[in-house]
Amino acid sequence: MSDRMSRVRGRLNDLEADAIFLTSMPKIRWACGFTGSSGLLIVGPDSASFVTDGRYTDQARSEVDGADVHIARDGLSACVKEVGLLESFSRVAFQADHVSVARRDALVDEHGEVEWIPKTGLLTQLAGSKTEDEVSRIRRAQSITENVFREITDLIEPGMTEREIGAEIVYRHLKKGAESMAFDPIVASGPNGARPHARPTDRSLHAGDMIVIDMGCFRDGYASDMTRTVALGEPEDTARRGYEAVLEAQHAALDAARAGMTGRELDAVARGSLEAAGLAEHFTHGLGHGLGLQVHEWPRVSHTADDELPEGACVTIEPGVYLPEKQYGVRIEDIIVLREDGCENLTRSPKELMVL
Amino acid sequence: MSDRMSRVRGRLNDLEADAIFLTSMPKIRWACGFTGSSGLLIVGPDSASFVTDGRYTDQARSEVDGADVHIARDGLSACVKEVGLLESFSRVAFQADHVSVARRDALVDEHGEVEWIPKTGLLTQLAGSKTEDEVSRIRRAQSITENVFREITDLIEPGMTEREIGAEIVYRHLKKGAESMAFDPIVASGPNGARPHARPTDRSLHAGDMIVIDMGCFRDGYASDMTRTVALGEPEDTARRGYEAVLEAQHAALDAARAGMTGRELDAVARGSLEAAGLAEHFTHGLGHGLGLQVHEWPRVSHTADDELPEGACVTIEPGVYLPEKQYGVRIEDIIVLREDGCENLTRSPKELMVL
Repeated sequence: MSDRMSRVRGRLNDLEADAIFLTSMPKIRWACGFTGSSGLLIVGPDSASFVTDGRYTDQARSEVDGADVHIARDGLSACVKEVGLLESFSRVAFQADHVSVARRDALVDEHGEVEWIPKTGLLTQLAGSKTEDEVSRIRRAQSITENVFREITDLIEPGMTEREIGAEIVYRHLKKGAESMAFDPIVASGPNGARPHARPTDRSLHAGDMIVIDMGCFRDGYASDMTRTVALGEPEDTARRGYEAVLEAQHAALDAARAGMTGRELDAVARGSLEAAGLAEHFTHGLGHGLGLQVHEWPRVSHTADDELPEGACVTIEPGVYLPEKQYGVRIEDIIVLREDGCENLTRSPKELMVL
Repeated sequence: MSDRMSRVRGRLNDLEADAIFLTSMPKIRWACGFTGSSGLLIVGPDSASFVTDGRYTDQARSEVDGADVHIARDGLSACVKEVGLLESFSRVAFQADHVSVARRDALVDEHGEVEWIPKTGLLTQLAGSKTEDEVSRIRRAQSITENVFREITDLIEPGMTEREIGAEIVYRHLKKGAESMAFDPIVASGPNGARPHARPTDRSLHAGDMIVIDMGCFRDGYASDMTRTVALGEPEDTARRGYEAVLEAQHAALDAARAGMTGRELDAVARGSLEAAGLAEHFTHGLGHGLGLQVHEWPRVSHTADDELPEGACVTIEPGVYLPEKQYGVRIEDIIVLREDGCENLTRSPKELMVL
C-alpha cells in the first residue's frame, strides 16, 4: 500500500505541485487503504495526512497505511486549518473533476495562501492499470456473480416477477460474501428489455420472453459486472437473430482487444459488426467501461473515448441492441484485462443463447 | 408536477437569472419527474428543456412532465450546444455545490456568451418542505422497513452472522416492494456496534451482544431510514444504562422538535440530555438529517447546522453512543415531520429495549 503512496508522490513533479489534495473516496482508498465514506488525503513530498470524522476513528486507525490520521470534530476542512495540514505547501493540486465549485471557493477562502491547481484525472492512469492482486479481487467478485447466475437460471420460471428475481439476485450475492451490490441489478423481460437501464418491475415472465440480467457486486473492495440475456422458452426468430448479432459483435471486440488501442477503436469493432447485421442504430450506448474500486471508472470504451487502453486495465465489453417495437432487448457483457498482445476474459459464464 | 416547475420558475427573480441549469438527479426528479440516472434540466421563464442520453429515450418520454425532451448522442453538453438550448438566455444559475470545477470550466468554454451564476442550495428549500403526498411515500417506504424489522427480530439467534442478517434485511425489503435499499444496511453486534458506520461482518452473534440495526429503502422514489438496537439475551448493566440514556435523549429531542428551530438547537437538546447522563462525549455524530428523494438531504440537524427547520421537513432523530472499551454501541432513529407546534413521528416500531 505504501508503494502506492510513493507512486502518488512521484506525480508531484509532473503536476508542478508540492502537495496533492485528494477528495474522492475511491482514489483515497486506492492510495491509503481507507474504506469508509468520508475523508480527505493530503500527500506532500515527505508526509501524508488523512482526515476523517468521528464515525471512523477506529476504522481509520486500523486501515490507513502511509499517512497520519486526524479526526475532525467540526468538518474536514476546519480540521485541515486547525492542524495546519497545508502550512508547508504553496502549490496544491486538487481533483477538478470531483471538487464542486462551491467547495473550491471555500478552500480558496480558507487557504488563500495556497495556490490551488485544478487537475482532472488525477491518479486516474496510476489506478487504471490493475496489479495481479487487484485482478484476483475482481475475479473473486465475478465468481460470486457467476455462481448466482447459475442458481438464478435454475430458478426462473413463467409467472415469477422481475422484482422477485432481482431480490433473489441480491440475496444470493450477499449470502455468498459480497460486501454489497455494485449497482441495483437489472432484470428486464420482454418489452422492458428494450430499456437498457430498466429496473425490475412487477411484470410476470411469459414464455417467449428474452430476459436481460445485469448484475455485479463488490468483494474485497473490487467490482464484478456481468450481463446475460436468456430466453424463457423459444424466442421469436427476430430476437434470436438479434442475440446472435450481439454475440458476434462481442466476439469481434474480444478478438480485437489489446492494450494500446483507444476506447474509440475498440468500440468501432463492435459497432461495425452490428452495422453489418443492420442493427447498429439499436446499439445506443458505449461498448464498455473500466472497473475496479468503482464499477464505472476510467478508461471508457465508446465512440467518444480517445484515451489509449493501458496494459492491465480491466474493462467491460457489453454490446447490446434495444428494439422496443419488437418487444425485446439483448446485452451480453464480460470483463476483460487488456494485455500487450490481446486480452484475458475474466468472465466464464456461458454465452450460447440459454433457452430456459 | 408542473406546479413544481412553476415554483422553480418562481425562483428566477430572486436568483437574478433568466434560466436555472439543474444537474443533480434528485432535484431534476423533484422538478420534472424523471427517475433515471443521467440528465440535465434547463428552466427558463417560458420553457423548460430536459436532456438525457439514448439509454433513457423511452423512459424520459413517458416520465418527464413540463419540459421538452432531447436525446443526446454525444454527451449532454454537446446536445445543449447543438440544439441551442441556452441561446435565449444571458444569466444562468447553476448548482455550485454539485457542478465540479472541471465541468463549470467546460460550460464556460462551450457557452462563453452566457454568464454562469454559482448558487448553492438551489431549490433546496423548495424541496425541503414535503407535501402530504411526499410524506405518504416516506410512510410507505418506512412501513416496509418496519415489517422487515419485525421479521428480523424473530429470526435473530446466537450463531448467525451479521452478514447473514444483512442479507435477510435486503432480501425482505426487495420482496416487499422496495425499489432498492437506501443504503447498505448496518448490522453491528457487540464491539462492532461501537463503530457508528460499521458494515456487516462474518462475526457470529453471542448472548449478551447489543446489536445495532440501521436500514432503509426507497419506495415510490422516497426513502425510509430507521435504527433499532436490540439485545441478544440480557445485556450488561452498563449497556442497558447506555440504551436508556440514548432513548431519553431521543424522547427529549422528539418533545422539543418543532418547525422554526435551527438544526443546532434541536441537536443541543439531545446532546444536553446525554451530557446529563455523562455520555455526551460518546455521541460522535450529528442528531439527524433531512430525507426525501435522497436518504441524506437538507436540512441537517447537528451542532453546526444553522438553518431553520421548515414546516413539513422530514428529518431523522438518531442519537447514539459508541463505547469501544465497553464493547457496545447504541443508536435509536426515527423519522419525524416538523409541524408548527411540534412534530409527527412517522416511525412506529417499538423502542423499549428488546431482549431477544
